[in-house]
Amino acid sequence: MKAARIREFRKPLVLEDVPIPEIQRDEILVKVIACGVCRTDAELIDGYFLKYFEIPTPITPGHEITGVVSAIGKDASSAGFKEGDHVVVVPGWGDGTCRQCRIGNTQLCPNVRYPGFGPHGGYAEYLPVPARYLIKVRPDLPFEQLAPLTDAGLTPYRGIKKLRNAGALGPDRALGVFGMGGLGGYAVQYAKLLGGGVKIVAFDRDADRLALAKGYGADHIVSVQRGLTPEVATELERLTGQRDLDAILDCVGTPEMMQFGFGLLGISGHYVDVGLLGDRIDVPLFPRINREQTFYGSNWGNHTDLSEVMALAAAGKIQHKISPIRFDQIEATLERLRDGSLTGRAVLMF
Amino acid sequence: MKAARIREFRKPLVLEDVPIPEIQRDEILVKVIACGVCRTDAELIDGYFLKYFEIPTPITPGHEITGVVSAIGKDASSAGFKEGDHVVVVPGWGDGTCRQCRIGNTQLCPNVRYPGFGPHGGYAEYLPVPARYLIKVRPDLPFEQLAPLTDAGLTPYRGIKKLRNAGALGPDRALGVFGMGGLGGYAVQYAKLLGGGVKIVAFDRDADRLALAKGYGADHIVSVQRGLTPEVATELERLTGQRDLDAILDCVGTPEMMQFGFGLLGISGHYVDVGLLGDRIDVPLFPRINREQTFYGSNWGNHTDLSEVMALAAAGKIQHKISPIRFDQIEATLERLRDGSLTGRAVLMF
Amino acid sequence: MKAARIREFRKPLVLEDVPIPEIQRDEILVKVIACGVCRTDAELIDGYFLKYFEIPTPITPGHEITGVVSAIGKDASSAGFKEGDHVVVVPGWGDGTCRQCRIGNTQLCPNVRYPGFGPHGGYAEYLPVPARYLIKVRPDLPFEQLAPLTDAGLTPYRGIKKLRNAGALGPDRALGVFGMGGLGGYAVQYAKLLGGGVKIVAFDRDADRLALAKGYGADHIVSVQRGLTPEVATELERLTGQRDLDAILDCVGTPEMMQFGFGLLGISGHYVDVGLLGDRIDVPLFPRINREQTFYGSNWGNHTDLSEVMALAAAGKIQHKISPIRFDQIEATLERLRDGSLTGRAVLMF
Amino acid sequence: MKAARIREFRKPLVLEDVPIPEIQRDEILVKVIACGVCRTDAELIDGYFLKYFEIPTPITPGHEITGVVSAIGKDASSAGFKEGDHVVVVPGWGDGTCRQCRIGNTQLCPNVRYPGFGPHGGYAEYLPVPARYLIKVRPDLPFEQLAPLTDAGLTPYRGIKKLRNAGALGPDRALGVFGMGGLGGYAVQYAKLLGGGVKIVAFDRDADRLALAKGYGADHIVSVQRGLTPEVATELERLTGQRDLDAILDCVGTPEMMQFGFGLLGISGHYVDVGLLGDRIDVPLFPRINREQTFYGSNWGNHTDLSEVMALAAAGKIQHKISPIRFDQIEATLERLRDGSLTGRAVLMF
Repeated sequence: MKAARIREFRKPLVLEDVPIPEIQRDEILVKVIACGVCRTDAELIDGYFLKYFEIPTPITPGHEITGVVSAIGKDASSAGFKEGDHVVVVPGWGDGTCRQCRIGNTQLCPNVRYPGFGPHGGYAEYLPVPARYLIKVRPDLPFEQLAPLTDAGLTPYRGIKKLRNAGALGPDRALGVFGMGGLGGYAVQYAKLLGGGVKIVAFDRDADRLALAKGYGADHIVSVQRGLTPEVATELERLTGQRDLDAILDCVGTPEMMQFGFGLLGISGHYVDVGLLGDRIDVPLFPRINREQTFYGSNWGNHTDLSEVMALAAAGKIQHKISPIRFDQIEATLERLRDGSLTGRAVLMF
Repeated sequence: MKAARIREFRKPLVLEDVPIPEIQRDEILVKVIACGVCRTDAELIDGYFLKYFEIPTPITPGHEITGVVSAIGKDASSAGFKEGDHVVVVPGWGDGTCRQCRIGNTQLCPNVRYPGFGPHGGYAEYLPVPARYLIKVRPDLPFEQLAPLTDAGLTPYRGIKKLRNAGALGPDRALGVFGMGGLGGYAVQYAKLLGGGVKIVAFDRDADRLALAKGYGADHIVSVQRGLTPEVATELERLTGQRDLDAILDCVGTPEMMQFGFGLLGISGHYVDVGLLGDRIDVPLFPRINREQTFYGSNWGNHTDLSEVMALAAAGKIQHKISPIRFDQIEATLERLRDGSLTGRAVLMF
Repeated sequence: MKAARIREFRKPLVLEDVPIPEIQRDEILVKVIACGVCRTDAELIDGYFLKYFEIPTPITPGHEITGVVSAIGKDASSAGFKEGDHVVVVPGWGDGTCRQCRIGNTQLCPNVRYPGFGPHGGYAEYLPVPARYLIKVRPDLPFEQLAPLTDAGLTPYRGIKKLRNAGALGPDRALGVFGMGGLGGYAVQYAKLLGGGVKIVAFDRDADRLALAKGYGADHIVSVQRGLTPEVATELERLTGQRDLDAILDCVGTPEMMQFGFGLLGISGHYVDVGLLGDRIDVPLFPRINREQTFYGSNWGNHTDLSEVMALAAAGKIQHKISPIRFDQIEATLERLRDGSLTGRAVLMF
Repeated sequence: MKAARIREFRKPLVLEDVPIPEIQRDEILVKVIACGVCRTDAELIDGYFLKYFEIPTPITPGHEITGVVSAIGKDASSAGFKEGDHVVVVPGWGDGTCRQCRIGNTQLCPNVRYPGFGPHGGYAEYLPVPARYLIKVRPDLPFEQLAPLTDAGLTPYRGIKKLRNAGALGPDRALGVFGMGGLGGYAVQYAKLLGGGVKIVAFDRDADRLALAKGYGADHIVSVQRGLTPEVATELERLTGQRDLDAILDCVGTPEMMQFGFGLLGISGHYVDVGLLGDRIDVPLFPRINREQTFYGSNWGNHTDLSEVMALAAAGKIQHKISPIRFDQIEATLERLRDGSLTGRAVLMF
């Protein structure tokens, strides 16, 4: 089968022919139909994670995976799948026995395996998946829309849920969503669905992305094209009537964005970061205490989260901006993700 | 001033002229412009509460009160109100010192006073209100819409919040709202705003009310005109794909409705009652334990709840079905509430 | 192997010799060393559950099971167990795929299997258990103490956690624990560990049990030997300074107990029932709404709950009152549970 | 009356005679009997807060205040106090109308006034306090113990509650408490009361303080005298069997402590900071996301928190290490707080 693989970090992917993987008794072989291309793929290739983990190569990247059931392991038949079923792949495969696995947060398992981070992933025609990490979906849902829902459309869902569960959203509050890239557009839509009427303020430097956010239901859009300046706070007040944000979902995660964000965050404010464009939190301490703020790391999503996202998709409640690409366009697409010039989500279609 | 008062329980209201009340230092005199007429007013008159409380007469009923600031007590001036301000009255005035008052649940104070339950209420041209129980509203919002938001549009808001905070709502779940009277129509709208995509199923015996619910965003409507029969469960399954409800907001509260509701309630289901048409919970115990269900009484709403409802109203996110009535129509309106023939909310306009 | 089995409901158990059960690939054969004898066993035999479920016979009762690993299925070896390991059996075996299983509440799975409710149970020398429903324990912990911790010492733990998570416990609050039988004594100890200083008031009709409760850390004991009379409220006030309870854990569950309990329950009070001596909730509705009370059914416990209980046991933080019995004493012990004359927990020792 | 006041920042306090303050209608004049001396007082004097706020002088510091009611304002009589009542002062006086005040978090009010931060405070014989910010206490409780409970014994209580409410504590978890100064000793005790059996690990560089922590119920003590080195993690594992902490209450708050703490924090770990010895959070971002950790600023405590602490004190559940000092020893005591050489809490006694 065709596969695009990391053979060496910080080098282009190698497009090659490799054998179709075998499956274990509890696994299902998924024929990949569509796989989202994510900025995290570029970060993986560029070595972002190497300071934290040893990651053996070769790796087939690609973690936003949807396709059809192609073969079923001996013990996986009871899971209710049959050949040809349309499925999405739940990311974060746990050992099933740790504390986090026991409550469903398999993506937090200390022994977690992530598809697309080694060895198998969605930049290939087939991959083996433990049956319990597949969710069956209705066959009329387009694959190119399903793929990004497993990360770009899943990660902000979990983040927005954290804000909602913290009581940070509501009709007399303002939520800032930072970054209208792959994740931010979905974030705005989830804020609309889960926010109980919260005022949604989308921040980005790009006018097209901000226009898209407006179309997704953002109440206000704020351009940061001229930088993260004090004028932005003034603009925020003009638009919303308040100088502070009650909640922030940060899909950027640079130190500057976080300093700026915490500077805007109000009393009892809640800040969720899902963005990894930087790797440092560096902010004053006292205002966090004095204003009693909370900061949440939020890691991807679990089976429950993805099931809920799939229910929203099945109900036609999620809009997409998808650019389908071919196998030989992966490298060019990663480049566009690196320079931030892509609007919406690129999806590799087999 | 004109006032419609209870002089004797289980007798018609007496329409009479009474002196305009004086105000205390911390109070504001509100000139009533609109006051909702609520089935609870009929229950008060009919003696429903007498088995629980001694309630001295005369009483001016009417607890859904909105109007303008007419006079301001000496110590109330710092609260930021001025004559002519449009205000709604927060129900449930606490002593300010008990545990519940300290966390804002003044309607749960053991020494609570409720406007409309003695002595003053909204079936009169003026009433004194402690300044801290007023919320200023934008002058362009119609009084006849504001009035019912202080109970019919507040009580289900708190109820739906309880369900949301319990984690009972979400896109792959079904919520039943029982009773499409004064409260139910608002409940459906709040479920839409707060439910994160939950499937909303409205139950009533009346076709007009069910049609209204559909217009408010109910995903499905179920008629119980032929009774609370097993066929209703079948209909529920046909509509939603599930035989059980994950959550219920009961705006009825008869024993039959509750038996029926608990019979439909699924595993880990959450049941909130705000309806008081009956006065008995009488259901089997074992399924509550075995299915690990939770039942919540929900009592009206507090300042925070009403502020949020007002924010939704100001954002144009609440629809209404209002029938304005005159002072001399109160009695006839109460009769229509008793026999359940009113659709939407009747509002007394001065 | 020896087994005591239900062949016909409402008849004595049949003591017989049956083959040692075979195990599936994912199962472990547990050699039972100790099994608690529970009032629910008597209820099962007496047909309490037959109105809710069809339960095929024969059944080996016994659901408080501890023992040693005797044989390991092919696919169960990865779970980390080896022959001779001391284990307790997690009750409530789910299908692994439903919403509740995904978040660890396998005891709430719609396809749940309970050991001791058919076919296999702890009134036999061996039983097969899916590997994921075993917890390894330190070999120095006495089996006769481990056994009851899987129900009598687990069910109230989950109940007390519900109260704690609801914010119902704290140093200026009073918790009532109803019934000092098998579960109540553990409940008092958990209230001590989890209650943040809550005043614990134990209720029972039996002086010995109340004395035991005192020894376990109850701040106050109240005898209801003379009935659930108004004097009890007076006694409560004398002891605690408050006429109301802020929280209740009911290990009894008769209609009378619940009516009495709700009558004592204060504003914003929380009532958890784990007792099943009756099968009806029949209480007034209005005070539930007016005082905004919450009622929780609580069903046994899950893997997480039992792991926590085991951690408390390993830390020496749980006291026990255990009466070991022999195989031929089961029937007589069940009789003592039926008439309520047993103090502490009887444990069958093989 | 005598008062020790800041006339100029970064200068010694001026001991002087000033007039007894007058009270407003809603205030009570408290005769100060005891006032805790806090490291925050030194920070105030040393200008720590000047980069965040303009703080007019003169200021009488001292915010851990207890005493007796000396005079009662005209409108304060209804609050239930009489001359001679023993009281503690709730810190954080709000405007009563903002969102935070409405739910009882008056210490988070945007218009908050803190006693001891201008103009009045407890380093004087009298101060005026709004009646709603006093809590009456039993006259047999020693003033020198009550004083520190309003900050040193309150702030960690709120912090530990945050950890408990987050689900971060429990019998199979480890909690680190950083810093065994004024706050840490209380923190250990609260962890014992609220932690449900959590393993408590106290960290400090001072052997005496660690011994004190052990006496307060810490399960393990870890010395960081030789620095925040990798050996500390090894020691942690030796003591608790786990290399990670599930929860942290940081009473230090230096950048080094926080870097060290986050380095030890496990998957789904929760970190509460109440310490202000530094003013910077500067840690890697990725592990926060990947391990899905949460950071909470926690600001002092509110009326509810202090009422609960007082209930614990009245029940004899809090131990103290108090060094009473005289008025002329304040300056020397502040010096000892600056150099970290004080064990327990110094309390100024009038």
